[in-house]
Amino acid sequence: MQKEAIVATYRIETAIPLEQAAEMIAGEQSSGTFLPVPGETEELKAKARAKVLEITPLETVSTPSLPGSKQPDVNAVRQQAEIRIAFPQDNVGANIPTLLATVCGNLYELAEHSGCKLIDLELPDVFARRYPGPQFGVEGTRKLAGVHDRPIIGTIVKPSVGLSPEQTAALVRELGEAGIDFVKDDELMANPPHSPLKERVNCVMREINDLAERTGRKVMYAVNISDEVDEMFRHHDHVLAAGGTCVMVSLNHVGFAGVSALRAGCELPIHGHRNGWGMFNRHPMLGIEFTAYQKLWRAIGVDHLHVNGLQNKFCEPDESVLRSLKSLQEPMWSGYHAMPVISSGQWGGQAPETLRLGGTQDVIYVAGGGIMAHPGGPAAGLRGIQQAWEAATAGIALDEYAKQHTELRQALEKFGGRR
Amino acid sequence: MQKEAIVATYRIETAIPLEQAAEMIAGEQSSGTFLPVPGETEELKAKARAKVLEITPLETVSTPSLPGSKQPDVNAVRQQAEIRIAFPQDNVGANIPTLLATVCGNLYELAEHSGCKLIDLELPDVFARRYPGPQFGVEGTRKLAGVHDRPIIGTIVKPSVGLSPEQTAALVRELGEAGIDFVKDDELMANPPHSPLKERVNCVMREINDLAERTGRKVMYAVNISDEVDEMFRHHDHVLAAGGTCVMVSLNHVGFAGVSALRAGCELPIHGHRNGWGMFNRHPMLGIEFTAYQKLWRAIGVDHLHVNGLQNKFCEPDESVLRSLKSLQEPMWSGYHAMPVISSGQWGGQAPETLRLGGTQDVIYVAGGGIMAHPGGPAAGLRGIQQAWEAATAGIALDEYAKQHTELRQALEKFGGRR
Repeated sequence: MQKEAIVATYRIETAIPLEQAAEMIAGEQSSGTFLPVPGETEELKAKARAKVLEITPLETVSTPSLPGSKQPDVNAVRQQAEIRIAFPQDNVGANIPTLLATVCGNLYELAEHSGCKLIDLELPDVFARRYPGPQFGVEGTRKLAGVHDRPIIGTIVKPSVGLSPEQTAALVRELGEAGIDFVKDDELMANPPHSPLKERVNCVMREINDLAERTGRKVMYAVNISDEVDEMFRHHDHVLAAGGTCVMVSLNHVGFAGVSALRAGCELPIHGHRNGWGMFNRHPMLGIEFTAYQKLWRAIGVDHLHVNGLQNKFCEPDESVLRSLKSLQEPMWSGYHAMPVISSGQWGGQAPETLRLGGTQDVIYVAGGGIMAHPGGPAAGLRGIQQAWEAATAGIALDEYAKQHTELRQALEKFGGRR
Repeated sequence: MQKEAIVATYRIETAIPLEQAAEMIAGEQSSGTFLPVPGETEELKAKARAKVLEITPLETVSTPSLPGSKQPDVNAVRQQAEIRIAFPQDNVGANIPTLLATVCGNLYELAEHSGCKLIDLELPDVFARRYPGPQFGVEGTRKLAGVHDRPIIGTIVKPSVGLSPEQTAALVRELGEAGIDFVKDDELMANPPHSPLKERVNCVMREINDLAERTGRKVMYAVNISDEVDEMFRHHDHVLAAGGTCVMVSLNHVGFAGVSALRAGCELPIHGHRNGWGMFNRHPMLGIEFTAYQKLWRAIGVDHLHVNGLQNKFCEPDESVLRSLKSLQEPMWSGYHAMPVISSGQWGGQAPETLRLGGTQDVIYVAGGGIMAHPGGPAAGLRGIQQAWEAATAGIALDEYAKQHTELRQALEKFGGRR
């Protein structure tokens, strides 16, 4: 069964009996509907109806997590549960938009549920035959960036918007001279009138290419090409022609089919930015968990995927960040490895825990303020982060390592109160 | 200012002072970031920083609507408010994915907010120059369907999945003979192995074309072409060649750039299905309101857009359905009219209130069970719905009209308990 089925795991909350609640999801998203219809024969159900595989009761709650549930008794106790449902592959085909119509679809609007979140997805091999997966992944990205045996350390051009192409290039030059591996546009900066993408790429790549000639190492610049499909290709081609080595897209706003179309003709690593993600995941009983989400983007073929960072400045707790980081390391068919991007409030101090709990240094570690606001300037900020990772890898406490490493010591003094 | 600005209206909830909370959104999504950065000069801020236009305090709440807010005092009272923020058009350009990175982006993850929902958007004219809007809209759809001066009445092929192409065609023939105007695939049914789209379209269109030759009226069949971009075009071309008059897409799962790419080469009305919408809108303090959402899809050029229906079977209250229905009638540039699709639990009984409160009969009115489960069969179900709309338009009470109209009377007897 499982080989031929799409298996979805949900966290649900309901005041009706769990078996009934789970069957409702299975029915609504396969051959059933609200009312019995004449065509839903036993024969049709046998091949097309989704099957409830497992129901694990969790906590009970006295107030509904989401509004809108039409329960007979408003004071009824709500039961939370984890359920697993198998959808026949034959209902869907290898078609990600329709997979989502099936495993998400109308489920979030069911009045009998006061909570529904897609937690995980098991995809049959037919998706691997249809979807190419990452073209570069960890290995290809490391090769292009020329960074091995340690995280790729990067930063975001800030201010996010407002700098001219020349100002952006001057900043990238400064960071490149300081030894940065990776620079990205902010998600707010794509192709606006005040910094047209072509002009910005020309200005920035001139500096990056010049530096590469002198040092033999080319800074990877993730150019935000987010736009309509034709424009993304025009931007991609320009980045490629200018010697660039990475393009970035806002995954949730370009969307699945748009990114998939880009992947089909893309010759550079795709840096997948997940801005807007809070809408999918902030509420524990609504939306999609990263574990399911990342599989879709890995199938489509994104090479880098944002996972936030430990002790970040947003609302996401560390355990959620670690779960995301771990999920990207789970095997998925063969070769579908996307590189995690760690960012938000990072300054190096999180390196030991990121390595110890996250279990990998195959990450792109992006720091903004941690580099730019370092008391010794950007070069010192970068050096401090490199030193933090050296210490983490060698298993030496940061305080200890800082005794011999000035930049790390300065970083600890400035940012260390946050640990 | 407004002409050159993108204005976003939000509902927010926070324990920090409202001015500070609003400025945080304006800063984070324009030239600011968590820490002051050297490049954010006064000159840059003057042109690039978003401006808070208006703050309207609403209720206070004692428990946060969303988890994850890192407030100093967990017992602090949270203030809800509606705020309006103007983002300089020059920051974004006419680029919908980047518009969303700007007006949504990281906002849902701000730890200082325990609620954030995008309520409305005002888009400057530069978007009208870039995005084509609906190609057919109300007028073009009516012309193709041959239905004027009353709603287009339709149904969904059920069971959603499991029927063979031949079985689907037989059902459509039956509905067509009964006088249906419009039939759509379920969102679960796109191009699966058990009902390949080409074969299904061939079978169904044979019946529809045959009926059209006999009656002069062609049933509009919204074929679910949701898939990757290339496949959507292949499907579209096949529908067109077979004489079909509509294609359907799952908007949220194909995504903005994918649907936009389709629109650029599409020769048929695009039926926009919003399944997955609950994730965006079920929570009152998270996500996007339909008022903002529909403007994006109208700009991109979707011809039909689902709004749910009064007394629906999902969790959405009537006031929200009506707000959506009204929002689609609001003028948007010139000619960007998309036709509302009313569905879920409809059987005709909702017609008077839909017309009176919704203010229009320029709708596609889709009933499943209300047609298929009518005691007199599908033809009678359809006739009952037509009669309900006749009564509504003439201002006659349904009970009164039912005295002379058997099918409506039967519908009232079977489904009327729900009113």
